[in-house]
Amino acid sequence: MKSRQIRLAARPVGEPRASDFETGMAELDPPADGQVLLRTVYLSLDPYMRGRMNDAASYAEPWRLGDVLQGGTVCEVLESRSVALAPGDLVLAYTGWQTHAVADAEGLRRLDPAQAPVSTALGVLGMPGFTAYTGLRVIGRPQPGETVAVAAATGPVGSAVGQIARIDGARVVGIAGGPRKCRALVEDFGFDAAVDHRSPAFEADLDRALPDGVDVYFENVGGAVGQAVIERLNRFGRVPVCGVVAGANSTTPPDGPVLHAVLRHVLSRSLLIRGFLQAEFVPTHHDAFLEDMTGWIRDGSVTYREDIVEGLEAAPEAFRGLLTGRNLGKLLVRVGEDPTRVADSDAS
Amino acid sequence: MKSRQIRLAARPVGEPRASDFETGMAELDPPADGQVLLRTVYLSLDPYMRGRMNDAASYAEPWRLGDVLQGGTVCEVLESRSVALAPGDLVLAYTGWQTHAVADAEGLRRLDPAQAPVSTALGVLGMPGFTAYTGLRVIGRPQPGETVAVAAATGPVGSAVGQIARIDGARVVGIAGGPRKCRALVEDFGFDAAVDHRSPAFEADLDRALPDGVDVYFENVGGAVGQAVIERLNRFGRVPVCGVVAGANSTTPPDGPVLHAVLRHVLSRSLLIRGFLQAEFVPTHHDAFLEDMTGWIRDGSVTYREDIVEGLEAAPEAFRGLLTGRNLGKLLVRVGEDPTRVADSDAS
Repeated sequence: MKSRQIRLAARPVGEPRASDFETGMAELDPPADGQVLLRTVYLSLDPYMRGRMNDAASYAEPWRLGDVLQGGTVCEVLESRSVALAPGDLVLAYTGWQTHAVADAEGLRRLDPAQAPVSTALGVLGMPGFTAYTGLRVIGRPQPGETVAVAAATGPVGSAVGQIARIDGARVVGIAGGPRKCRALVEDFGFDAAVDHRSPAFEADLDRALPDGVDVYFENVGGAVGQAVIERLNRFGRVPVCGVVAGANSTTPPDGPVLHAVLRHVLSRSLLIRGFLQAEFVPTHHDAFLEDMTGWIRDGSVTYREDIVEGLEAAPEAFRGLLTGRNLGKLLVRVGEDPTRVADSDAS
Repeated sequence: MKSRQIRLAARPVGEPRASDFETGMAELDPPADGQVLLRTVYLSLDPYMRGRMNDAASYAEPWRLGDVLQGGTVCEVLESRSVALAPGDLVLAYTGWQTHAVADAEGLRRLDPAQAPVSTALGVLGMPGFTAYTGLRVIGRPQPGETVAVAAATGPVGSAVGQIARIDGARVVGIAGGPRKCRALVEDFGFDAAVDHRSPAFEADLDRALPDGVDVYFENVGGAVGQAVIERLNRFGRVPVCGVVAGANSTTPPDGPVLHAVLRHVLSRSLLIRGFLQAEFVPTHHDAFLEDMTGWIRDGSVTYREDIVEGLEAAPEAFRGLLTGRNLGKLLVRVGEDPTRVADSDAS
């Protein structure tokens, strides 16, 4: 069995270019005992991937040149040498930018298409949704009547943050790029207000949308937007930090207050800033998350949007668009046919 | 009754100068019902005072020009119109840089000289000790075997931080200016290691003193020292921030990473940064603090140093020295005779 793969050809300088990616074929070994052969149905494209393309240590090792690009996937089991899985099962995997893979059955989670569309395992019911849930519930802890702000707010993390915060009784202000996304925040996701960070009146619009300041700022972008919101935090404000994707493509350092001034601000308002990876909360909070979020989707208190592009070859260009905010909702690549779908229309 | 006062004559630009202070006399009204007339015994000089001299909002209002300078004091009751206090009682007050004052009895705490020297109510058993205790126990939470670092480590906050962290089983590294202070850290306060931030080899010395990185950095200085330690934080490192006195006299902005880079660092190591004022923890933790700290002083597991200057007139120059690190230990001004002292020798 052969797998078609997209690999890291060169480390991007600034915005990734087509030449930073290369396509190749790999011969797969047949599955050994305890392993399965998988066919990729959906590949998740996420902002964290840009950081891993750099040769800089972060919370994870950088990706190696020539390797297949990594990423979360939903796959169909084609062959199984594990009693836990059977051909035709759909699983959540981490097999990356390729059409097929062999993986240990132990690391896979079987998905139930009757519960929710399987693609949601990469979005609202997956890593992005869990990031929103734990950052908000464990770190941000909004109280009824408080104000929660979130940027990249139509994305899978931001849209879940806003909707969970509203369930918890907070007033929610979303920040997004352009009028189309701002409209979606209010009309589709039920945010109390939306602010367009591309507007020349951004700072004034932000003041108007935040008459009582900000109590929780869910940080997933950083940069100028992060700075503007952090300046507006109230005393005892909380900032869960799950990402700082702004300027990911930038080759020059951003502007902003220096560490000492940041610490002064943290001190003068008794602020809490806490970086986190969703993985650290899996043992303690994942069961509660799945139960809560599945219920919220079923009763309509949480909705989600997906932006699905067709075919593995479309992944590099779609990923470029993700970094410049082109998509609206969770960005997925349909690498192969989804056997649970009755039509080709969008699952959301 | 007249009170001799030191007032804010001008807002210091950079290092405070003698001309920023002025001495004057104020006529005090006699105490009304529920009030007492006080004679100042000790005045506390603390780094936070420099910030209040500026015309910039922080967690508190700036001091007004022409007003008597504020500050914590230990006073003797001369006259009482409250049933709660009698002449001769010693109390903890907040009457500032003056020899006498009239105050509401309700805001005063009676001190028991048999428990500990009354001057300690401004240091190890007072606001600085409570800052150390809550920042460490509520926010930093060092675990046995972890490494705790603290700057301004011979000061009343830093020395208490290090000693409490050792009681909690941590390895403790103190940072201070000059070999005399570094010796005191190890010999008097029992720190595991000391690093001189004035040494040209500071960064290399810090690496040597921190072979396992830093788990808790108790931030009370900021600036270049803060930056150096924050860079060395381990995953899940915690940074209680009680002060950023470095550069308090500076008229130019300090160097350092900008907000976006700080957030990246916070994210890549899952760090927690939390500003706090000790006052927020008084309702929940002050009783436990007094009990624990009194016990530790009695059994010798916490020691303290005081640096006492004589006479109200010495306060401005002593305060200038505080900002440049001249004193070793808690800086106090003996404004008037301490009736509980048998000799004039240092209480520590």
